[in-house]
Amino acid sequence: MALIVQKYGGTSVANIEKIENVARRVARTKEGGNEVVVVLSAMAGETDRLIQLARKASEQPVDREFDALISTGEQVTITLLAMVLQRMGYAAKSFLGSQVKVHTDRSFTKARIVKVDTEAMTRELKRGVVVVVAGFQGVDPDGNITTLGRGGSDTSAVALAAALKADRCDIYTDVDGVYTTDPNIYHKARKLKKISYDEMLELASAGAKVLQHRSVELAKIYGVPLFVKSSFTDDDGTLVTMEDKDMEKEVVSGVTYDRNQAKVTVVHVPDRPGIAARLFTPLSDENIPVDMIIQNASVEGFTDLTFTVARKDIRDVQRMVDKVCVEIGATGVEYDENISKVSIVGVGMKSHAGVASRMFTALASEGINILMISTSEIKVSCVIESKYTELAVRVLHDAFGLENDH
Amino acid sequence: MALIVQKYGGTSVANIEKIENVARRVARTKEGGNEVVVVLSAMAGETDRLIQLARKASEQPVDREFDALISTGEQVTITLLAMVLQRMGYAAKSFLGSQVKVHTDRSFTKARIVKVDTEAMTRELKRGVVVVVAGFQGVDPDGNITTLGRGGSDTSAVALAAALKADRCDIYTDVDGVYTTDPNIYHKARKLKKISYDEMLELASAGAKVLQHRSVELAKIYGVPLFVKSSFTDDDGTLVTMEDKDMEKEVVSGVTYDRNQAKVTVVHVPDRPGIAARLFTPLSDENIPVDMIIQNASVEGFTDLTFTVARKDIRDVQRMVDKVCVEIGATGVEYDENISKVSIVGVGMKSHAGVASRMFTALASEGINILMISTSEIKVSCVIESKYTELAVRVLHDAFGLENDH
Repeated sequence: MALIVQKYGGTSVANIEKIENVARRVARTKEGGNEVVVVLSAMAGETDRLIQLARKASEQPVDREFDALISTGEQVTITLLAMVLQRMGYAAKSFLGSQVKVHTDRSFTKARIVKVDTEAMTRELKRGVVVVVAGFQGVDPDGNITTLGRGGSDTSAVALAAALKADRCDIYTDVDGVYTTDPNIYHKARKLKKISYDEMLELASAGAKVLQHRSVELAKIYGVPLFVKSSFTDDDGTLVTMEDKDMEKEVVSGVTYDRNQAKVTVVHVPDRPGIAARLFTPLSDENIPVDMIIQNASVEGFTDLTFTVARKDIRDVQRMVDKVCVEIGATGVEYDENISKVSIVGVGMKSHAGVASRMFTALASEGINILMISTSEIKVSCVIESKYTELAVRVLHDAFGLENDH
Repeated sequence: MALIVQKYGGTSVANIEKIENVARRVARTKEGGNEVVVVLSAMAGETDRLIQLARKASEQPVDREFDALISTGEQVTITLLAMVLQRMGYAAKSFLGSQVKVHTDRSFTKARIVKVDTEAMTRELKRGVVVVVAGFQGVDPDGNITTLGRGGSDTSAVALAAALKADRCDIYTDVDGVYTTDPNIYHKARKLKKISYDEMLELASAGAKVLQHRSVELAKIYGVPLFVKSSFTDDDGTLVTMEDKDMEKEVVSGVTYDRNQAKVTVVHVPDRPGIAARLFTPLSDENIPVDMIIQNASVEGFTDLTFTVARKDIRDVQRMVDKVCVEIGATGVEYDENISKVSIVGVGMKSHAGVASRMFTALASEGINILMISTSEIKVSCVIESKYTELAVRVLHDAFGLENDH
């Protein structure tokens, strides 16, 4: 007998028929002699509908009210699943974040889970009840409803699995696992049987949208085995787990891309201490994340500074950077929204030399110019012109032989 | 400065434009130097949409889950109103039943309010915040969400007003007050300036749908002055309050009707002790309310027993009564769904003789046959053939001169 946490995303609970499909899968797991905790997202499209309502009510809805509004989406799906399970003859009980309780900090719209109480869930599990928990939501120390940010249900599921010391956490989505690259871009994309937490983290931050970043971090910290599966097939999916010897055989595990980037170059900046702080402090003050930052070697006391931000933030960035630029005496600023980032990720890089140069060679072979480069221990990212995105992904997939299981 | 509780029904918050209308009215009350607590229903149609979802999930959805599901409707409207008020520059904060807290018993779908905590609301009111509370919902001793039954938001509003010792409770609806009869049936219907709690209770139980019965009971117990008003006009509305001398001048305050009735006659019942109990216990066991009960004088040890139930319950009643009928040795049972109940209500009856006979005479003058009669201290009800409903209402309205304010 195992304790299994299953999380189902919005497309898996988009209507009653799909919720019945989820119920059958839960029932099968229960019949297998397991204790089951189910974490649900809102019906696909429901959160967006609620966000639209909020936008109509106010251009800048107050965060506290916004969270209480959009958390209703999960409240609907958990009660419906509990009803369906009970109709099918299984004891089931729904729990809101405030009922479990899932304690978070006070950061509305992007709260972090501080602690998960297990008493209520454990009591119900011991009685044979399927526990159905609202993902994406928690409660702050003052009893206000908080939400965890887009994709937060993944994090809810992992946090519950960690707190309950579950044997595993199954994340059911509309894809059937983690692929070597986006199958929509390259038909040779191959599903991975296994991937390490670190690779998954790099893939997530490099643009792959399979799992919320924070959920993988938590899974890594607490050693929760994560299975990424499809709720529409009986496929095995991909196991996200600790790094092991098998993984190191592969130089590269995946190729990913991010089109939602924009590049900013501040030209002819005086190379003085404190200049970078002047530039980036206003951005961090307004919670605008900066991804890559590159500063060229200084020539005659001046340098160029290039960085990337999310494309949606570019107007705000422009307003702030143009102002700072005058103050620090830079010659000008260039903004480029026609860029993409392509990345290769793999724990094998640590023990294989020459991975980066193989990447550059592959891109060059197709005449793709590299605008920026950044590397980490298990990732190499290149910023390129946006129009080459798909071509670059296919070239790199071929160059590292990803279509074959080694 | 007064403390005012305002309750807005589903048609008053049916979309963002109407919620903005509510916000303007709340703002005006606040600008008048008052402390304001707002209680809201779900958007018109939303509760029905959620009930449909529940029915699709299960023919007999578990009550606990049902309540948690349909309580989301109010959660949406309170957060939207708080957002709109804040956009307009007013501090506002939404509260769920579980946040206030509105403590109820454990009777899901028809919970009764046990106690309302006032600490959180009072703290916010003192800070000048408009407190926006979800109607229709509460929380039971185990932390489960409960709902108060159809029209329960009226009861929420009165319970909050009583707990906060508010100066008054304004119930905003889509009608602009309490009328002498249904204006859709008789154009001479007149809006009442004032009506007593007891008359309002009799009108509510006789079919008038302006206020939930329980809300008037609570208002009477705690002496909360209730104003029934339209949220679409600036009309004064009707004040529901203690009985006073003015009210006694009028013999009858209103004529009302109920088409949702059915009549059951058990024929030739042996007139023995315990027979009525045998008949009605199964009905009360299944929570089927019986309205009027009439037993004729016994002839040679046998009697006929007639009673009315809600038309929607008639199939269940038939199943039970047919069975009991055989057991007790009655000759047969007659069911009649083509009936209505018309009632006249007025505190003046207590001091005016001959009111009932005036009613019977008026009905007879139009050849309307009376099938059953029942009386209370301030009400006379007659069951008649359904097709005469409108005619009967008009005849009685004229007979008691209700078009004129006395």
